[in-house]
Amino acid sequence: MSASENSMVIVDGLVVSRWSRSLFEDMRRGGLTAVNCSCSVWEDFRGSMARLADYKKMMEENGDIVTQIYTTQDIGRVRRENKVGILLGWQNTSGIDDQMSFLGLFHELGVRVMQLTYNTQNLVGSGCYEARDGGLSDFGRDVIGEMNRLGIVIDLSHVGARTADEAIRLSRQPVCYSHIAPKALKDHPRCKTDDQIRFIIDKGGFVGATPFPPFMPRGAESTVEDFLDMLEYMIGITGEDRLGIGTDFSQGDPYTPDYWVRDKGYGRKLTEFGQIKYPDGFQTSAEYPNLITSMQRRGWRERRIRNVMGENWVRFLRDVWGA
Amino acid sequence: MSASENSMVIVDGLVVSRWSRSLFEDMRRGGLTAVNCSCSVWEDFRGSMARLADYKKMMEENGDIVTQIYTTQDIGRVRRENKVGILLGWQNTSGIDDQMSFLGLFHELGVRVMQLTYNTQNLVGSGCYEARDGGLSDFGRDVIGEMNRLGIVIDLSHVGARTADEAIRLSRQPVCYSHIAPKALKDHPRCKTDDQIRFIIDKGGFVGATPFPPFMPRGAESTVEDFLDMLEYMIGITGEDRLGIGTDFSQGDPYTPDYWVRDKGYGRKLTEFGQIKYPDGFQTSAEYPNLITSMQRRGWRERRIRNVMGENWVRFLRDVWGA
Repeated sequence: MSASENSMVIVDGLVVSRWSRSLFEDMRRGGLTAVNCSCSVWEDFRGSMARLADYKKMMEENGDIVTQIYTTQDIGRVRRENKVGILLGWQNTSGIDDQMSFLGLFHELGVRVMQLTYNTQNLVGSGCYEARDGGLSDFGRDVIGEMNRLGIVIDLSHVGARTADEAIRLSRQPVCYSHIAPKALKDHPRCKTDDQIRFIIDKGGFVGATPFPPFMPRGAESTVEDFLDMLEYMIGITGEDRLGIGTDFSQGDPYTPDYWVRDKGYGRKLTEFGQIKYPDGFQTSAEYPNLITSMQRRGWRERRIRNVMGENWVRFLRDVWGA
Repeated sequence: MSASENSMVIVDGLVVSRWSRSLFEDMRRGGLTAVNCSCSVWEDFRGSMARLADYKKMMEENGDIVTQIYTTQDIGRVRRENKVGILLGWQNTSGIDDQMSFLGLFHELGVRVMQLTYNTQNLVGSGCYEARDGGLSDFGRDVIGEMNRLGIVIDLSHVGARTADEAIRLSRQPVCYSHIAPKALKDHPRCKTDDQIRFIIDKGGFVGATPFPPFMPRGAESTVEDFLDMLEYMIGITGEDRLGIGTDFSQGDPYTPDYWVRDKGYGRKLTEFGQIKYPDGFQTSAEYPNLITSMQRRGWRERRIRNVMGENWVRFLRDVWGA
């Protein structure tokens, strides 16, 4: 890896890996500057607070290599200290129960990215696997207002199409799909149409691309080159300033596969993923250098590589967080 | 009020008044620099979090006159901005339920003073109205260790004598009685003996004096002069560098008197307070100037007045908080 790669800002916009010392070591080996780590998926208020407490303890215990980030200004510190910046995020808004005021507590504790819904309907709106999407609830509209006021990133990856469309229109701040793939390449209910991708970008938003195999045309056979093809396809829609990466890596995942495809982790089955095998050479947080090397081999200009690998994410986060 | 009084640091170490715009205005009128406002008494985890959220909202809504303080460094900012610094505190450790890790979340949210027990036994130890005080539980010993690690002030005002004695010996940081009166002047179970007061001071601790009428020799007939007599009596034990004020003011208190004298706010009756009438001239947070004037009339030197009115509190808080 060259010196310029070594100083590259690398952001992973979505990771659900089980935390451990060895995961953090992988992240540092991979040169990650910041990672959006999901710390609530189906948890309620108390469960989400308990998770936060556990995760903060683990960050403290591994404070020599990871540190929590609250603002993009923290990223400068992270890089000087040669650590991995951990950004705490949610894949659901179940963690506030029905109390709007809890959003502010989580914001203060550093939860700065939240997905509005996870796969199915909640108090806010509908999910991408819900049979009918009735759009945002009135409570959901208020939640968006409060997230805007606080400066919490609104993520719509697993949100239903109508709810997402309304959220994009309503939000005063730009919003994102943190980890998606194009439906044009793979017709899966979690994938987004070109129009959906274009719309969020037109409204000032941001898109993270995932190499999650079930969303790629060749599934478990996909290669890093397939992922780069996908990135290039998406750049054709987003341009190269508004696209980043959100791997959805789940190293050491303690959950059964069922957890991720059933409503609330245990209910009716929502989809089938088949085998989840990431491309050889990009299966762990340690392997970002391979991705960069492949980009260089394809002749991507350094500017494009830097943008997609992390600088675009940082600019977007700064826009929403305000610092 | 002279210019020197105007710039005096005034700290109230314990207030349970109901929050409102007019209370905050009283605090500012009184020249308060910092106030330890109780935001949990009997509440459990969820209830304490909900209170925090509400209180933070009220501070934001009244951000032109109050601001939350997290460190003693914030006090400089408070004074420059001519605001009242609100320090959030608990009168119990019920708010962490049985989860040690929740202490860190509340610390991050700014709860920086906690009483170990409130009147009766909890998971940590015993209260001052408990028939038998078995001392600190093993969980309680761990709680003290974690509070020390985080830098949360340990308050023992309503704690049982044996539990308090053990906490003073065990704590690696100095601890306090935030609002007490001397048993030598009024034989009440909430009052502390001279030996108890001497012991906490000998161990590097701190004492706040309360003019709460039921703990004063002349009860509801007490005057500001009676309170000054009490302060002078206490200085005879503590010296003038380790004593402050904790009024226990309860302006606009929404609770029935029963709430404060029954176990968990509704159970068996623990004590009788009779009429609660603070001394004329010192009944609200607006009236600190009267107290200062009385001190001056008694011929207290300015050094002593400054120490007792607030500078002692600030030094003690800095010792524990580390900043």
